[in-house]
Amino acid sequence: MSYTYEYPRPALTVDCAVFGIADSSLELLLIERAEPPFAGHWALPGGFVNIDEEIEDAARRELEEETGMRNVFLEQLFTFGGVGRDPRGRVVSVAYYALAKPSDHQLAAATDAARAAWFPLDDLPPLAFDHDSIIDTAVTRLRGKVRYAPIGFELLPRKFTLTQLQGLYETILGTELDKRNFRKKIRSMELLVDTGEIEKDVPRRPARLYRFDRTRYRKLARQGFAFEL
Amino acid sequence: MSYTYEYPRPALTVDCAVFGIADSSLELLLIERAEPPFAGHWALPGGFVNIDEEIEDAARRELEEETGMRNVFLEQLFTFGGVGRDPRGRVVSVAYYALAKPSDHQLAAATDAARAAWFPLDDLPPLAFDHDSIIDTAVTRLRGKVRYAPIGFELLPRKFTLTQLQGLYETILGTELDKRNFRKKIRSMELLVDTGEIEKDVPRRPARLYRFDRTRYRKLARQGFAFEL
Repeated sequence: MSYTYEYPRPALTVDCAVFGIADSSLELLLIERAEPPFAGHWALPGGFVNIDEEIEDAARRELEEETGMRNVFLEQLFTFGGVGRDPRGRVVSVAYYALAKPSDHQLAAATDAARAAWFPLDDLPPLAFDHDSIIDTAVTRLRGKVRYAPIGFELLPRKFTLTQLQGLYETILGTELDKRNFRKKIRSMELLVDTGEIEKDVPRRPARLYRFDRTRYRKLARQGFAFEL
Repeated sequence: MSYTYEYPRPALTVDCAVFGIADSSLELLLIERAEPPFAGHWALPGGFVNIDEEIEDAARRELEEETGMRNVFLEQLFTFGGVGRDPRGRVVSVAYYALAKPSDHQLAAATDAARAAWFPLDDLPPLAFDHDSIIDTAVTRLRGKVRYAPIGFELLPRKFTLTQLQGLYETILGTELDKRNFRKKIRSMELLVDTGEIEKDVPRRPARLYRFDRTRYRKLARQGFAFEL
């Protein structure tokens, strides 16, 4: 089979930058490419969009095929179309990003991927294509977004301590936060509900457990309230 | 000439949502399509990306060809690729958005556009393709972004009053803001410099003139400071 057009067309691909929050380090999911170009190089999971497939479905399918990851909330990041970015010719890639807990997922490489693995964000191997630039864009977006939208709560237990919450933000931002300021800001948003419960079985004074009030957040967001940390 | 590929490929287009700030109303730049599909319908300016052309360059070129607008800062918005969005077959469109002052630009329609005109955002004509959905996404992004990034200052005179600044934000957000709260927030960010000058030739008590301190903003942004309004 072959397909003929009056004008030349770029190929369309997807790439997925999946961040993992593991033990206070921010990690990134990569695959080792089994096929040329860049065979044997590490890269973001991704591949070609089928002609009758929604772009986001393609991202979800490629992520699952190449890494085994399922049930990840992908958000569109940016479309990379630099003229020289792929040695095969013009390839335009719609990039997605997501946050996940590595321990929730069993990795299993297949199809175009020889291996799939988590890498610490500050110690990535050399990458195929322009994937370093996709990753830079994804890190900037993630660190920007975490300051004005309550992303990340789904990576905590349903009931969590303020220390756990601060740890999550510090991991994502890659920086330490001042405890007093952090608590003041979190409290002033009134988005946490005190469950009345405390931690169990900890070798120190147990801390209060909170949950995130998503209903109240949605209501405030509709009123133009800005989450801000 | 014709171009043949082993797998079918979508066509790649760009669309531009250019918002205009005019006399306290938020407007949108549209063109009337001269060619099918949707000939005679209003639509966002846009068109096909050439095979050797950067995507953003294509957006800039199409905007200028169809409307005469130049020197507009386009930011990538989102890529729309819904399978049924174009009657010609699979067409994936990378959408861009921008803010402009209509009075700075002389509109001149050409190529695929019969006319170009500004429309009030709350009174748009029926639109071609899925352009209503592109516009919804652009409005949401613009109104979100204005709260955490100092966009829009370039639409004010270099020296402006706090009333002018508040008017700009009210126009973009489509809502009235409380004057005291607005001034308190603006002052607390310490991003405005009092020029020591006052308005001239106004039929009331002249107000102080300020300028935006972009150097200080860039420095704070590098330190993780969040602009917030």
